[in-house]
Amino acid sequence: MSSTRLLSPLHLSSYCNGFHLRQSSRTSLGRHKSTSSVRFSWFTSEKQICRTMASRAQPTLNLENLNPCIKVMEYAVRGPLVTRAGEIEKELEKGVKKPFNEVIKANIGDCHAMGQKPITFTRQVLALVTYPKLLDDPSYPEDVKQRAKTILSGCRGGSVGSYTDSPGIEVIRRHVAEYIERRDGIPSDWQNIIISAGASDAIKNVLKLLICNVNGKKPGVMIPIPQYPLYSASLAEFDMHQIGYYLDESRNWGLGIAELQRSIDEARKVSNPRAIVLINPGNPTGQVLSRENIEEIIKFAYKEKLFLLADEVYQDNVYAEGSKFYSFKKVLIEMGEPYSSMELASFMSCSKGYLGECGLRGGYAEVINLDPAVKAMYLKAISAMLCPTVLGQACLDTIMNIPTKGEPSYELYMKERTNVLSSLKLRAKMVADTFNSIEGMSCNPVQGAMYAFPQMKLPEKAVEAAKKAGKQPDAFYAFELLESTGICIVPGSGFGQQPGTYHFRTTILPQPDKLKAMLDKFTEFHTGFLKKYK
Amino acid sequence: MSSTRLLSPLHLSSYCNGFHLRQSSRTSLGRHKSTSSVRFSWFTSEKQICRTMASRAQPTLNLENLNPCIKVMEYAVRGPLVTRAGEIEKELEKGVKKPFNEVIKANIGDCHAMGQKPITFTRQVLALVTYPKLLDDPSYPEDVKQRAKTILSGCRGGSVGSYTDSPGIEVIRRHVAEYIERRDGIPSDWQNIIISAGASDAIKNVLKLLICNVNGKKPGVMIPIPQYPLYSASLAEFDMHQIGYYLDESRNWGLGIAELQRSIDEARKVSNPRAIVLINPGNPTGQVLSRENIEEIIKFAYKEKLFLLADEVYQDNVYAEGSKFYSFKKVLIEMGEPYSSMELASFMSCSKGYLGECGLRGGYAEVINLDPAVKAMYLKAISAMLCPTVLGQACLDTIMNIPTKGEPSYELYMKERTNVLSSLKLRAKMVADTFNSIEGMSCNPVQGAMYAFPQMKLPEKAVEAAKKAGKQPDAFYAFELLESTGICIVPGSGFGQQPGTYHFRTTILPQPDKLKAMLDKFTEFHTGFLKKYK
Repeated sequence: MSSTRLLSPLHLSSYCNGFHLRQSSRTSLGRHKSTSSVRFSWFTSEKQICRTMASRAQPTLNLENLNPCIKVMEYAVRGPLVTRAGEIEKELEKGVKKPFNEVIKANIGDCHAMGQKPITFTRQVLALVTYPKLLDDPSYPEDVKQRAKTILSGCRGGSVGSYTDSPGIEVIRRHVAEYIERRDGIPSDWQNIIISAGASDAIKNVLKLLICNVNGKKPGVMIPIPQYPLYSASLAEFDMHQIGYYLDESRNWGLGIAELQRSIDEARKVSNPRAIVLINPGNPTGQVLSRENIEEIIKFAYKEKLFLLADEVYQDNVYAEGSKFYSFKKVLIEMGEPYSSMELASFMSCSKGYLGECGLRGGYAEVINLDPAVKAMYLKAISAMLCPTVLGQACLDTIMNIPTKGEPSYELYMKERTNVLSSLKLRAKMVADTFNSIEGMSCNPVQGAMYAFPQMKLPEKAVEAAKKAGKQPDAFYAFELLESTGICIVPGSGFGQQPGTYHFRTTILPQPDKLKAMLDKFTEFHTGFLKKYK
Repeated sequence: MSSTRLLSPLHLSSYCNGFHLRQSSRTSLGRHKSTSSVRFSWFTSEKQICRTMASRAQPTLNLENLNPCIKVMEYAVRGPLVTRAGEIEKELEKGVKKPFNEVIKANIGDCHAMGQKPITFTRQVLALVTYPKLLDDPSYPEDVKQRAKTILSGCRGGSVGSYTDSPGIEVIRRHVAEYIERRDGIPSDWQNIIISAGASDAIKNVLKLLICNVNGKKPGVMIPIPQYPLYSASLAEFDMHQIGYYLDESRNWGLGIAELQRSIDEARKVSNPRAIVLINPGNPTGQVLSRENIEEIIKFAYKEKLFLLADEVYQDNVYAEGSKFYSFKKVLIEMGEPYSSMELASFMSCSKGYLGECGLRGGYAEVINLDPAVKAMYLKAISAMLCPTVLGQACLDTIMNIPTKGEPSYELYMKERTNVLSSLKLRAKMVADTFNSIEGMSCNPVQGAMYAFPQMKLPEKAVEAAKKAGKQPDAFYAFELLESTGICIVPGSGFGQQPGTYHFRTTILPQPDKLKAMLDKFTEFHTGFLKKYK
């Protein structure tokens, strides 16, 4: 995101200069070198530029009249630290000397970027639906071909280039429902499956339905603190009230009902609480909720008349002995009435789990017990965006309906899946163990998901230095870490944390050897940091 | 969208019945037949169901407290008529007798669904980036391989499964900028290119920036009437004021400055007009704006301090002799200051043109002259959604940077492109000529885009019958057409039209023989309709 280079407040002159810079520094990456000889005849001299500046139109859109919700929203996973990391990468490319050779992006759950390999079955199916001539190629397994044909038969005109129904292709929605039935032992209606461009898209579409001020009070949505910042960003964008409930770090990021009650009671004074978001397994905190805990939460939500949003995108990422993933759907249905008829939206994604296909943008929401009139409105609301990407849908199909024993792709699929998950399990332990071994740091076990969220005690002097630099202490720490080691993490303040505590989120995604090296560098940096600010 | 079958207002009982229906009628499309034997033990008898119903939780979200903006939004291209068309398709599959054998979906610009073939180069590149093993396959042309490698080199970890920067992959943004430079003979800064999941995504992201009430007045956005309903739907969703300016049907859907002035003067009383949307070539109206007309519009926008949004997704679809596409960017820059420093967002898509890859969701906005602080906010706002689909981005690359003379894919690319465009040209004429030959219909020439928007005189008795049926007269007509012939069009009321006039939009996309048959059926139906309501 080097575009921020241009974002000087002196925009008139920087734009002007920018034109010069861009002309002289443009390197054509394509073969159309001829285009760089286009003559920019209206800027012929410095003089003319100055005349021109004098009569420029003023922007109609400025910070004063910009959407105020956009102004306040933040998304730390891609914030200023990441921008700086991008700049450092470019500096390294240009040969600038640094105390490291590469930036390690431990800020974002971007599996393939960190060296994870795609699942072969998935990519073969995608290649075949994209270029159906490959259906005649004898080198592809029969189940790959069969799957590609099934998906293509759900596409109008037999092409992934056609629009699908807005909630997705029927056969894929049916596969999703069958997956959920197998997972939970509970029926799932394919018509409740709304496919989306990643879980983020689905989450925003459901949250959006709840925007409605009542008696001058904003709708409130309960979210965990720490949270995944898509939630805080979306609530800010939608001008909804964020009701943070703290997870209990001392009980392995457990979720206490007393804290839920405290946060909602407080929030009722200023807002109209309507929904509760649960992230299980937790992001950034890595805990896996117990069945009992889920039951308590559902009872709480029932009592408080809350719509349940269960972010379950890490359902395949459970590592710790004794931890098991229970879907909110399963628990809620098995609790019987009145709980089993509560509204619940649960979200899943192709980006996480063992697939890690973040760039393909596939996901879904299963939405149950919706008022049918509301469901009709929901479907109407997503229809203007036409449909989620068909190749993202096809990708989703390959984890919802995986090869079964006896099919040609089965062995390889299982091997690849197991490799990814068992390696992640090792890395989850390695990361938590390392941070627990560092002076002044503590880290709950990473039971699931892809992140650790260690706490660190920062020396007084570092806190003061941060204040002087106008930064949050944890952000100050993260910037120093980045500049000295190339390791890019996200400060805890981007996710929320108890006042006076400092954390950071790191992914567990670098491949084992790189992760080992990263943790060594991290340990060394931290020791040095403590010494520096002693 | 057969999901609407479940949407009875008697939702308790229908949900209850739904469970039975779904259990008995579920046909597993996958191979996991075993799952249909899952025992749904909590619903064992009618009696128990009724007990269960009594203690159900009530939905917390209902029509009373649903987002009011979602309630009012409409998107006619996928409205009730299309839902009915989907039902009819299912009925035909089941063997229900109809006076026709298939539904012809002339409601939506869905090229591949209507039999248009994908461009080979595009699909080969996509297959290779998806499944890089194919890079070693000697049967792919060298330029395809080169392109795939270039795209993969822009992906983190060399995988399309990684997240990209939120505005897209740098090398593709550069290719877009180079395309624009070639098109306009005007420089384009790649950092002004924001890649998106189709143009719709980009349009909404720009409109969103303008949400800001001033002195209690809503922000207003000028849109043509008739318009593409994404605009009315988005303005409704964002609670912005829609300022409709009428296109002049008698002057081939031309755009008169007096009408722009009338509409903005009127709108200023109740809103704060901030932007103007231009669709060129026009959707649903098919006109191509002249350079003079564009200049007038830009002058008007400057005078009224409006942000320009140029929807130019049909820039490759220009058919009429003497018509030529001029981008707003080119005209605005060539007009010099102060116009050349006005804010402009122009939109392009992979879904239209000769590519027609609607399902892959690729598009971009070029945004120029933005206040740098606003641009930073814009980039921040899109960052929470992570990135547009990488395969949509790769698809975009293949029309932005097409094979050049001498490269192995050049001849085929050109042949395929010319075939699509020349056939569309023929069909554009065929459609307009046919509607002009039908009694009581008139149709402006389809100069560009993919639609005709004929006017029809409806008999008094038909208007009365429509009123009785609680329908708009044009919707009433469209439903009768659908039920009698299987032809699915969109009534003019979905796009907006002068009060008392009746229109419909049809695409020109059915393949020539099917289009001929459709037009014959249409003519026959219309004659019968006139007779019926004489």
